[in-house]
Amino acid sequence: MLNGDVKKEPKLGFYRYLHLKISKNLNTPTIQAINSTLAEDSSLSSLKAKYLQIRAQSEKICAPLQAEDYVVQPIVDVSPPKWHLGHTTWFFEKMLLEPFCKNYKVFHAEYDYVFNSYYESIGKRVLRTNRGNLSRPSVSDVYKYRAHIDQQMSQYLTNQKLTSDEINILEIGLQHEQQHQELLLYDIKYILGTNPLFPAYQNKLTLTEATTTRPLGFLKVAAGNYKIGHQREGFSFDNEHGVHQVYLHDYQIADRLITNQEYLEFITDGGYENFRFWYSEAWEWVKNEQKKAPFHWHLIDGTWHHYTMNGLEPINPTEPVSHVSQFEASAFANWKGMRLPTEFEWEVACQTHQPDIPKSANFVEEGYYRPRVASEGNFQFYGDLWEWTNSAYLPYPYYKTAEGALGEYNGKFMINQMVLRGGSFATPLDHIRPTYRNFFHPHLNWHFTGIRLAKHD
Amino acid sequence: MLNGDVKKEPKLGFYRYLHLKISKNLNTPTIQAINSTLAEDSSLSSLKAKYLQIRAQSEKICAPLQAEDYVVQPIVDVSPPKWHLGHTTWFFEKMLLEPFCKNYKVFHAEYDYVFNSYYESIGKRVLRTNRGNLSRPSVSDVYKYRAHIDQQMSQYLTNQKLTSDEINILEIGLQHEQQHQELLLYDIKYILGTNPLFPAYQNKLTLTEATTTRPLGFLKVAAGNYKIGHQREGFSFDNEHGVHQVYLHDYQIADRLITNQEYLEFITDGGYENFRFWYSEAWEWVKNEQKKAPFHWHLIDGTWHHYTMNGLEPINPTEPVSHVSQFEASAFANWKGMRLPTEFEWEVACQTHQPDIPKSANFVEEGYYRPRVASEGNFQFYGDLWEWTNSAYLPYPYYKTAEGALGEYNGKFMINQMVLRGGSFATPLDHIRPTYRNFFHPHLNWHFTGIRLAKHD
Amino acid sequence: MLNGDVKKEPKLGFYRYLHLKISKNLNTPTIQAINSTLAEDSSLSSLKAKYLQIRAQSEKICAPLQAEDYVVQPIVDVSPPKWHLGHTTWFFEKMLLEPFCKNYKVFHAEYDYVFNSYYESIGKRVLRTNRGNLSRPSVSDVYKYRAHIDQQMSQYLTNQKLTSDEINILEIGLQHEQQHQELLLYDIKYILGTNPLFPAYQNKLTLTEATTTRPLGFLKVAAGNYKIGHQREGFSFDNEHGVHQVYLHDYQIADRLITNQEYLEFITDGGYENFRFWYSEAWEWVKNEQKKAPFHWHLIDGTWHHYTMNGLEPINPTEPVSHVSQFEASAFANWKGMRLPTEFEWEVACQTHQPDIPKSANFVEEGYYRPRVASEGNFQFYGDLWEWTNSAYLPYPYYKTAEGALGEYNGKFMINQMVLRGGSFATPLDHIRPTYRNFFHPHLNWHFTGIRLAKHD
Amino acid sequence: MLNGDVKKEPKLGFYRYLHLKISKNLNTPTIQAINSTLAEDSSLSSLKAKYLQIRAQSEKICAPLQAEDYVVQPIVDVSPPKWHLGHTTWFFEKMLLEPFCKNYKVFHAEYDYVFNSYYESIGKRVLRTNRGNLSRPSVSDVYKYRAHIDQQMSQYLTNQKLTSDEINILEIGLQHEQQHQELLLYDIKYILGTNPLFPAYQNKLTLTEATTTRPLGFLKVAAGNYKIGHQREGFSFDNEHGVHQVYLHDYQIADRLITNQEYLEFITDGGYENFRFWYSEAWEWVKNEQKKAPFHWHLIDGTWHHYTMNGLEPINPTEPVSHVSQFEASAFANWKGMRLPTEFEWEVACQTHQPDIPKSANFVEEGYYRPRVASEGNFQFYGDLWEWTNSAYLPYPYYKTAEGALGEYNGKFMINQMVLRGGSFATPLDHIRPTYRNFFHPHLNWHFTGIRLAKHD
Repeated sequence: MLNGDVKKEPKLGFYRYLHLKISKNLNTPTIQAINSTLAEDSSLSSLKAKYLQIRAQSEKICAPLQAEDYVVQPIVDVSPPKWHLGHTTWFFEKMLLEPFCKNYKVFHAEYDYVFNSYYESIGKRVLRTNRGNLSRPSVSDVYKYRAHIDQQMSQYLTNQKLTSDEINILEIGLQHEQQHQELLLYDIKYILGTNPLFPAYQNKLTLTEATTTRPLGFLKVAAGNYKIGHQREGFSFDNEHGVHQVYLHDYQIADRLITNQEYLEFITDGGYENFRFWYSEAWEWVKNEQKKAPFHWHLIDGTWHHYTMNGLEPINPTEPVSHVSQFEASAFANWKGMRLPTEFEWEVACQTHQPDIPKSANFVEEGYYRPRVASEGNFQFYGDLWEWTNSAYLPYPYYKTAEGALGEYNGKFMINQMVLRGGSFATPLDHIRPTYRNFFHPHLNWHFTGIRLAKHD
Repeated sequence: MLNGDVKKEPKLGFYRYLHLKISKNLNTPTIQAINSTLAEDSSLSSLKAKYLQIRAQSEKICAPLQAEDYVVQPIVDVSPPKWHLGHTTWFFEKMLLEPFCKNYKVFHAEYDYVFNSYYESIGKRVLRTNRGNLSRPSVSDVYKYRAHIDQQMSQYLTNQKLTSDEINILEIGLQHEQQHQELLLYDIKYILGTNPLFPAYQNKLTLTEATTTRPLGFLKVAAGNYKIGHQREGFSFDNEHGVHQVYLHDYQIADRLITNQEYLEFITDGGYENFRFWYSEAWEWVKNEQKKAPFHWHLIDGTWHHYTMNGLEPINPTEPVSHVSQFEASAFANWKGMRLPTEFEWEVACQTHQPDIPKSANFVEEGYYRPRVASEGNFQFYGDLWEWTNSAYLPYPYYKTAEGALGEYNGKFMINQMVLRGGSFATPLDHIRPTYRNFFHPHLNWHFTGIRLAKHD
Repeated sequence: MLNGDVKKEPKLGFYRYLHLKISKNLNTPTIQAINSTLAEDSSLSSLKAKYLQIRAQSEKICAPLQAEDYVVQPIVDVSPPKWHLGHTTWFFEKMLLEPFCKNYKVFHAEYDYVFNSYYESIGKRVLRTNRGNLSRPSVSDVYKYRAHIDQQMSQYLTNQKLTSDEINILEIGLQHEQQHQELLLYDIKYILGTNPLFPAYQNKLTLTEATTTRPLGFLKVAAGNYKIGHQREGFSFDNEHGVHQVYLHDYQIADRLITNQEYLEFITDGGYENFRFWYSEAWEWVKNEQKKAPFHWHLIDGTWHHYTMNGLEPINPTEPVSHVSQFEASAFANWKGMRLPTEFEWEVACQTHQPDIPKSANFVEEGYYRPRVASEGNFQFYGDLWEWTNSAYLPYPYYKTAEGALGEYNGKFMINQMVLRGGSFATPLDHIRPTYRNFFHPHLNWHFTGIRLAKHD
Repeated sequence: MLNGDVKKEPKLGFYRYLHLKISKNLNTPTIQAINSTLAEDSSLSSLKAKYLQIRAQSEKICAPLQAEDYVVQPIVDVSPPKWHLGHTTWFFEKMLLEPFCKNYKVFHAEYDYVFNSYYESIGKRVLRTNRGNLSRPSVSDVYKYRAHIDQQMSQYLTNQKLTSDEINILEIGLQHEQQHQELLLYDIKYILGTNPLFPAYQNKLTLTEATTTRPLGFLKVAAGNYKIGHQREGFSFDNEHGVHQVYLHDYQIADRLITNQEYLEFITDGGYENFRFWYSEAWEWVKNEQKKAPFHWHLIDGTWHHYTMNGLEPINPTEPVSHVSQFEASAFANWKGMRLPTEFEWEVACQTHQPDIPKSANFVEEGYYRPRVASEGNFQFYGDLWEWTNSAYLPYPYYKTAEGALGEYNGKFMINQMVLRGGSFATPLDHIRPTYRNFFHPHLNWHFTGIRLAKHD
């Protein structure tokens, strides 16, 4: 009997300070209830070190930007980088310094309004504006805000013995900042990549172009009951909780991601002109948006290019195809006569074939901002691109809305979104694990997405 | 090993005549690939009898209407009744009479345009109009069209030995017409119920008001692997195929639908004002649409009324609540501290507790147009209201897009929609079975929907 | 000194019963303050005769329709014919029977809501619907309503000595009904002419096709100060009042309307593809609406046809071009190197060259529903098509907002609209006079419009 | 005979290089055909001096901004300041340096795309973006661009004898830059004034608050024929040409602008809640936009404040009311029982009572960015606020579309816009004259507008 394995949910009452309303339109990551472990393994000094390291990473990501790049919001899903920097800072001020530090004085009265995602309860006045219209606070003011909060937080993490509640909120704040780090990279790429000058984000050397990719292989998984959900040590979100059993029929799953070359064949074969490969809603999207290729692709003088973090480049045929929506991933799979895996098939295959996250992956920490070319013996389940599944984002069995204030938000995105698994090169290592469930609406493609195929026989 | 049980898909090449493009916006039921059995058990005379009986039923449904009621299209999801009557007729003309009857002459050249759902390939001219703007063909012209086609079909079904292809297309045509019969009732109720005069559709006696409803009970189902999907005799759609195994954890499922009284408590308790019960997208919907109650409900002088097929009436507290969206059903379940069942939990519970469809149900054939009050010993799985589940509409394992023209459409709705099970009082008996999968977008509520709760312990 | 000539405005306090809010979107003619003369020349019996004759004319216009044609509203500018019939009836009930007939009982409590144009003060409930969604009251119910009100009005006009206030309201009601008669014809043509079956409204013989049109001539008017505004006997609206002086420079004005043939040359010469002829806003309209020709024109197998009241016909090259917007009329004039006349130039030319309205004109009373071919010696200022001017609809000097309830509405349309002069074949004779100012937004073209050119030298 | 006075239009063929498409949505001033006089009075050295002085003024206006302020575009009518700076620069590069300077090398190939207002002919690629989404070119890149072009232009104006064509284009370029200088101030005020931090543009001392305003007086003008249109020396646009005669009836026109105090009385009296004062379209605007006061006004703790160039301040009751739309100006006039003047009444009164433009006016050159308090003996016709008239923007008699490329654009805005006269404190002196016709859509109010009343008796 497997039910006994299902973990009890942690008591979430300590999130009583969190009153964030995080609108889907404003692209703030869900502040999810967590299974925190920071409390158990951390002295104050290591907490502070971790805090400062994560905070520094956000600024490192923004270092190549010019002031103007911090300001714009070309679509509603993209937030201005300075907003990301301010909002994550405001979180620590609002959730830790204000409630737990006696005599703490708010840095700027209006920042609660500017950097909060929760506009509804403001009341004082409603300005019809949005983030991309705000030239102030300036970038340098935002950095001053960060410096001030970091200084206050350092003091707080030096002087004060934290309760488990505080440690949990700290952990959420850090996870939150890391989620924004990945969003920052999506958004920066959007901002620069839709600019007619196509400025590069960095000028690192590009990867030596692999001249060959190994043929697509398939890993076989035998039918049976499998355990799904987070059972490891370490931090996890509550959408991974509720370890449970799933019956899977025999299936095969690709041993690498689909390449640009393979996707180009779909384009060349008329994939974007043939309604048969597309969901009805996807076909509307193709026509309304006049889609001809993945996001960031441009046909220039007859040759497909794509905007990369290094600027505009001809397509590298052996790199994994990226910036596809679930609509496009599904259409490609249909064209191939296959399908996308379910999130359960993905998790079982990943746990079986590549349980360990390669610490040497080319993640953003190493400053290499593009997916890898798949090589022999590398199943590439982690850290290149988020892989679209054909699973809707739904609660696991035993998932229960928690009582506390934060808890109420856990399930609120579990409709009309599709699950992605694996993590991209832009994902902080803390967010890479076999059970992590990412989710987006199926038409979105400005994030670092890819395609892994599956089939039954 | 369960895989051996999975039925092979029927060869769908014979749907080569079907080139329908059925847009989600135009609310035409999916013409799905089928597992037909009509061929096996039907002589020509019985085919003809069935044809005439089903065709007559559509007209019976429209009999209480005035000419004007046939014309309007108050929202894009609702089609004018005369369009339903013409479109289902056109199907038989286009799919059987034209290809299989030598020398058949098209009734009216323009009807192909007017009654086809596929506007894209017309080309000849594009008129920017939609169904609700078309005063012609008039209602009497549409009935002349029906009479003509029925006369031709009768002749065809009298004289000619049908191939299995023809029988299959005939069966699809009849299933198609039955799906439209249910839509007709949704749409008629919309048209009359949003009219400021609130005209009644019929003037049947209302049910004696039950003074008591039994307390909500729960049926227990033990954990284990269960078979899902169509395995019976008789017609089925391909979205029910692919019999497969699903592991279910222990669960409990309600033994009746939620009543108006129970739903009123949710309203009274501020259910529509508290974002905590709602998905993020649902909360946007509540605010944008200023929702306060189910569709067809009106607060008149402090008392809740609802528009029924008999006209405007005070809410009957013991009747099942209807016209709720999945958003509302989920919010209600959250408020109750429970959840909606998955479609698999529903199917297993239904198969276990009420495998037989009561032939004496108050379906529309009997002219009783409202859901029943749940009574003792009646698990009410069938035929009162379509029950929202918390399952996204996704393909079953081994589901495969067929090669033929019709086949391509099978999977195209499998995104962003939620499954409903059970069938409503307006559902033709041929469409009531434990494995039937209905699906709608989660915000829709003009169809006959209801709420059944579930929980894990 | 001309100022002394300016007529004093009539006291408008007697419109205290009129609380119509007439939204531009709902296409109700302005109920304008008037200079009534009905009081002076009418016995009760002649009032009643006039009432009955005008009321009968509305029904005569609708006689060729089928019930379904009365219901639809293909665009927001078009109202369903049954709404026109009900609304004009409701006016007499609300403005005369209710206030002046003791013990009068309202025909149907909800009709106040259904047939009023003023939705804002309803309050009782807000139904999100619009006129084209209302299948009820049925057409026969509307005719019953008309019959009832006509019977009551006949009695009222028989028994009671009317005060001058009542006579004035009666006159407004009749003028109002006549304005709706013309709108009825615009709207009927829209409804039938955008139907893919192109049903004819009537089947009268078409005019013998004229094989020649005389060359475009120009009437010369010498510079000087001219009097503008209504100075005749008889009814007039207050937007014509304020007789005043205008200085006109020498100008020439065409002696007939532009023909289809002449407009076709504009089309053939690329008029719709060349932005130079169009206002900036007009060019946006051409592109957004993909305009290629006047409204109701269709290119069928390489030949231009247009929908007429007789159905679809090849363009008659010698008929005046119709269904052009002011945008199109201006672009045509630019292409010709000329311009449209101002409303003052038009009025002076009309007063000079064709002061008398031909009683034998082919107006709708004679059942001939199309503009005439211009013939020798016929300056054609009246009664063929409303002629777009290049004058914005603005108040005349001394125009003043009246104190009474109706009065407030006089000026509310005097922004963003352009003046048309002359009257169309669908205009009741009571609405044809040299000073009558019609006005529409410049992009509209579903009414019976035409083009007359002017130039300075 | 007055016609002889009408100036012949200049030959416009020399504008053959100008192929600007200037969309209304993109808020670029019309490049209008002109009556240039620069050629007659200017040596090369004085041309260069004027060029450099005007170019420097644009940068002086932007000097108080932070880099981020240059980037945003909060509404479509507002352009980012860096776009203004780049676009005016691009004009000189494209219209003078490229065609007239041999061997001139384009500064940056993409700037033609970024800074052109004409997107339609690009073709190479269509990027779905707009100005406010472009973080690059950066502000410093734009200033580099300006420096480069100014250096090239200085050389060109030093070395080369200019033809009259070149001088005319130069004059247009300078007028164009001056129009953008005023727009820059509108847009900067919008950007800063809708920011929740309300940053000041400058920190100049505010004017000593006048404690009294003289009562509203009226200037009388006798009826008669008056000459209208540009007859002076100096530059003028072709929409002022066509000197012609207009007959005016006796009228009175206010001797100063309406003050904040007077406008507050309108607000307090329920002006924004009473439909009677508003055009029908204006009332829709009031309701849809939830208007309660002029743009930039905020009710803070019960006291009306407005955002000024100095930041948020309590309303100064004696200052002229600003940031009103024509809708608001008309409603105010209706409430007062008066009206707005026509543009002809304004021009005649201005020519009569204040023919000279005060060289000492507080124009933006002096760095004082707000309208003046009206003082005794000051008719204040010029240079405080643009004064809405009740005249639609229409062509003068004899106005004719010119043949050349630039010419075609002259009339294209002459629909649906209303004329403003006078000039604001932000208007360069070169654009202040009695005949200058400014025009905007009547709902717009982000520019520096004011109200002057008129009446007939």
